[in-house]
Amino acid sequence: MTRFLPAFLLAFLPVAAHANGDVLKRTATGAEQVLQTVDYANTRFSPLRQIDAGNVSRLQVAWTFSTGVLRGHEGAPLVVGDVMYVHTPFPNVVYALDLKNEGRILWKYEPRQKKDVAAVMCCDLVNRGLAYADGLVFLHQADTTIVALDAKTGAKRWSVANGDPALGASNTATVMPVKDKLIVGISGAEAGVRGHLSAYDLKAGHLVWRAYSTGPDAEMLFDPEKTTELGKPVGRDSSLKSWSGDQWKIGGGATWGWFAYDPKLNLVYYGTANPATWNPTQRPGDNRWSDTIIARDADTGVARWVYQMTPHDEWDYDGVNEMILTEQEVDGKPTPLLTHFDRNGFAYTLNRETGALLRAGKYETTANWASGINLDPQSPTYGRPKRDPAYSTEREGEDVTYTGICPSSLGAKNQQPAAFSPQTRLFYVPVTRMCMDYEPFHVDYVPGQPYVGATLSMHPAPGNEGSTGGFLAWDALKGEAVWSKPELFSVWSGALATAGGIVFYGTLEGWLKAVDAKTGQELYRFKTPSGIVGNVTTFMQGGRQYVAVLSGVGGWAGIGLAAGLSDPGDGSGANEAYAALNQYTALGGQLTVFALPKGE
Amino acid sequence: MTRFLPAFLLAFLPVAAHANGDVLKRTATGAEQVLQTVDYANTRFSPLRQIDAGNVSRLQVAWTFSTGVLRGHEGAPLVVGDVMYVHTPFPNVVYALDLKNEGRILWKYEPRQKKDVAAVMCCDLVNRGLAYADGLVFLHQADTTIVALDAKTGAKRWSVANGDPALGASNTATVMPVKDKLIVGISGAEAGVRGHLSAYDLKAGHLVWRAYSTGPDAEMLFDPEKTTELGKPVGRDSSLKSWSGDQWKIGGGATWGWFAYDPKLNLVYYGTANPATWNPTQRPGDNRWSDTIIARDADTGVARWVYQMTPHDEWDYDGVNEMILTEQEVDGKPTPLLTHFDRNGFAYTLNRETGALLRAGKYETTANWASGINLDPQSPTYGRPKRDPAYSTEREGEDVTYTGICPSSLGAKNQQPAAFSPQTRLFYVPVTRMCMDYEPFHVDYVPGQPYVGATLSMHPAPGNEGSTGGFLAWDALKGEAVWSKPELFSVWSGALATAGGIVFYGTLEGWLKAVDAKTGQELYRFKTPSGIVGNVTTFMQGGRQYVAVLSGVGGWAGIGLAAGLSDPGDGSGANEAYAALNQYTALGGQLTVFALPKGE
Repeated sequence: MTRFLPAFLLAFLPVAAHANGDVLKRTATGAEQVLQTVDYANTRFSPLRQIDAGNVSRLQVAWTFSTGVLRGHEGAPLVVGDVMYVHTPFPNVVYALDLKNEGRILWKYEPRQKKDVAAVMCCDLVNRGLAYADGLVFLHQADTTIVALDAKTGAKRWSVANGDPALGASNTATVMPVKDKLIVGISGAEAGVRGHLSAYDLKAGHLVWRAYSTGPDAEMLFDPEKTTELGKPVGRDSSLKSWSGDQWKIGGGATWGWFAYDPKLNLVYYGTANPATWNPTQRPGDNRWSDTIIARDADTGVARWVYQMTPHDEWDYDGVNEMILTEQEVDGKPTPLLTHFDRNGFAYTLNRETGALLRAGKYETTANWASGINLDPQSPTYGRPKRDPAYSTEREGEDVTYTGICPSSLGAKNQQPAAFSPQTRLFYVPVTRMCMDYEPFHVDYVPGQPYVGATLSMHPAPGNEGSTGGFLAWDALKGEAVWSKPELFSVWSGALATAGGIVFYGTLEGWLKAVDAKTGQELYRFKTPSGIVGNVTTFMQGGRQYVAVLSGVGGWAGIGLAAGLSDPGDGSGANEAYAALNQYTALGGQLTVFALPKGE
Repeated sequence: MTRFLPAFLLAFLPVAAHANGDVLKRTATGAEQVLQTVDYANTRFSPLRQIDAGNVSRLQVAWTFSTGVLRGHEGAPLVVGDVMYVHTPFPNVVYALDLKNEGRILWKYEPRQKKDVAAVMCCDLVNRGLAYADGLVFLHQADTTIVALDAKTGAKRWSVANGDPALGASNTATVMPVKDKLIVGISGAEAGVRGHLSAYDLKAGHLVWRAYSTGPDAEMLFDPEKTTELGKPVGRDSSLKSWSGDQWKIGGGATWGWFAYDPKLNLVYYGTANPATWNPTQRPGDNRWSDTIIARDADTGVARWVYQMTPHDEWDYDGVNEMILTEQEVDGKPTPLLTHFDRNGFAYTLNRETGALLRAGKYETTANWASGINLDPQSPTYGRPKRDPAYSTEREGEDVTYTGICPSSLGAKNQQPAAFSPQTRLFYVPVTRMCMDYEPFHVDYVPGQPYVGATLSMHPAPGNEGSTGGFLAWDALKGEAVWSKPELFSVWSGALATAGGIVFYGTLEGWLKAVDAKTGQELYRFKTPSGIVGNVTTFMQGGRQYVAVLSGVGGWAGIGLAAGLSDPGDGSGANEAYAALNQYTALGGQLTVFALPKGE
């Protein structure tokens, strides 16, 4: 194989001045890992190639580390120079480990958080990891406190509260350093939190701008004339007009997913979560801008364009999944693309400069809530889903149970990020194949209390022979899967593609797997101590390429197990489908680091 | 190297009818592991030789498993056929794992124990593992409940309470199946529990005999005429005469160590723990039979012989460490030996048939509480330690602090078992090199409450350049170390010797190490997820030899870390010396299974 540097990285290099130079420099070679998204473009593609399809079967465990915390371990460790930074779920401990000494602890940071923070978190006490820039390690705690730690010493440089846990705000997401700012989201739609994206000063920690997901234009940083959806200005009060009364004030649209950034366009991309409450009859209207892809100017926060995928969401189809930025030819023209695999089962590809919708098709064929997305620009419902009224209160009225809706609220894919390989031009997508029965009920808003208003019962999607998950390679422009592998359970781990022609992911049973990027053929598997809901990472140290992953079953898919309950007690019924997981794994919290045998 | 079957195993085989035939059959080849002591003789020697000094450097991690519990993981997994049985610290979960499917969980048993049991346990909530015989897996819970589980299904066959936690009784030890009985000890000397050894019916669980460590002859199962010490009958009321008043009723002598069994002599060997309270001035006299090696008839429990190592113990020098049974030539004659590395720093070798004391010398040279053991049979103090009065209340009176006593209460060696290789005729001994200042104080006995009566402050033994532990090879007949390796911390993991010419042990930092049995040269090391206080085991499965070890820092040596405290709060001061451990490892609970690369 020839040496390879992905085209989009080359494209980014000349515009370093627009990004955070330190981040861009460190993400360029793949030797270090400073972002949870691997790169600003969120491709989760590593240019490293020492480990490849030919030798990955000889991968060995190099060393291991227990985090001392038993819960769902989402995210991945960072690597800066010879130091690895490992985070844990609540209580959100941070370790700096010496890579030259097989994980000796250089420093440890353990925040003091009130335990009742955990009570308002809907779906396990996960944390999706740290970010690094300019000598600082950034932690966003469960209680929404953002902390900047000196990467060398672990000393706290600054901290700031991004939300009020007493009102239900919490955090599970990572942050993203962009230029001189830190881009930060918030969780809590299940407690009626009104979502927002915020930018804090990277060095000093003060708030620079904040953009809400719902409400008045001024608070959303919307320009009624210049902010567009599908090429048209959204107009004045675009959000307010789509809600009944003051419901937008407790309307959700949280921002707990992954962020992406295009340095050339200076735009930050992210998705907003479900509207609150889950009971749709309490919030008539489109509930803008929940379940929406938003592109914002990194300097000002002003929205350039938006696209709402699931207007008037009736099934908790959060739009927070990652936006993957690629350069591909569309109709013979190189085009800056954004591809997004939504919880609702559709894969969307847009021109990320203009917000034009180029493709939208089902990557999960069992999705039945809508037959498709209207792609006719002349239609008054352009861009909107063609909904099946069998699964809608619009037909049935209040407090009715819909049965057999697919996908379930877990999503055809949840937050676990897909990867894109510029070698194959394919996206690698971890999927969940579950359906649900969904019973909305009236719920009153009480500050700081759950504001859900629906009871769920999940079950495997039909036609998958007991499998409830999978991993597939998706051609976004053709709108079809090139290959697809069933997995026994939801794949709740992120994908990582490398220039070695392989794709890594983990399974809820605890397998780390490497597959051939072209064919999906399994090349390697290793049983790590506990179920994997974290993301695989790779890095160089001392001339060797390493692969690392956090184990520790949990997250929404593993929450029943994580809670050690026969029923998770959240009414989701998730445990029913995942009881079988107890036959494979127990709670854990470990890092496993892999390498080829020495000298190879 | 030629094929090798240790002489003592050959010696045992013809007398299988005297032992538990199932256990003897399964311990013969080393392919399975049914006892925590590896064999009845407690040699912790495996005849397996696929992994040897020449190839151990190529050992790889085969698979891993998280136990879901974070505390000190002492003991080792068992292997019966293709099933591995893994135990955890409190709450004492048991897993049956399918070795053919890299640890898939066949069944899980989780006892319901009252949490306040944990409050009376002195030194972390450890458990030293399961035992197997005749289709049953035996668990001795923290709350002293003994449970017999069906090995195939995990169903409970019987259970019985061996003590009363409300009075301070608890358990950390394993049990030993002997013939049709289960030999069982008890913990709680730190709460004034009066120790006893008990035999329960293996199949039905009822008590067959019970022998106390202190008190009237009838309750100790002592025959004043036939029970001997150093060849002489102990005489009537040997224990009662050595205590002041009723102090023997709360006099300790717990039995939480490892047991050994000689099928030919039909004798069970074990040691008794420290006398209670730790404050010696409250219990004048020799405090018999605390700190004593006892040989009992397996059928009746009657004591054949005893030997008290530390009469009137003033420093918590428990005598519970394992008894290792070997056949070696003494003065040109093959002799049935018992060798014991005591907490007090001396290694004792006795004729295990007669109880005659053959050797007694310091294996830990810093030991200073006694200059030696009187080996002159004509002396009235024959067998007694030559105590240094500088470290005794006998000189100083009540409530005085002795400083610089070595070893510390942790012992020159604690429970972590030594191994013996018949190939080298050497014992492999994990040691702790700590001294202490010891301040006794008056304490009143309150049932179920701590009854300690001393404050300790520990510090590294002088002359070891910051090292507080080590691993050494000991020639018991010559009374000298053949080689000795320093370790940064106490070695709190047991040794395992194999016919491959190697010895395995773990370190508190989390290293699994393999050293050359002849030279001590390190041949292999691997950083497991957490500190190792468990014992390394080896077994065969599908024609391959595996090595396995539980990680999970804790136990007395790691208790400060395990408790997550800057001070363990038990007044022991142990944390002071082990604070440095936080630089290496965090809490854990994982199994790591190793093998040579496939096809090797």
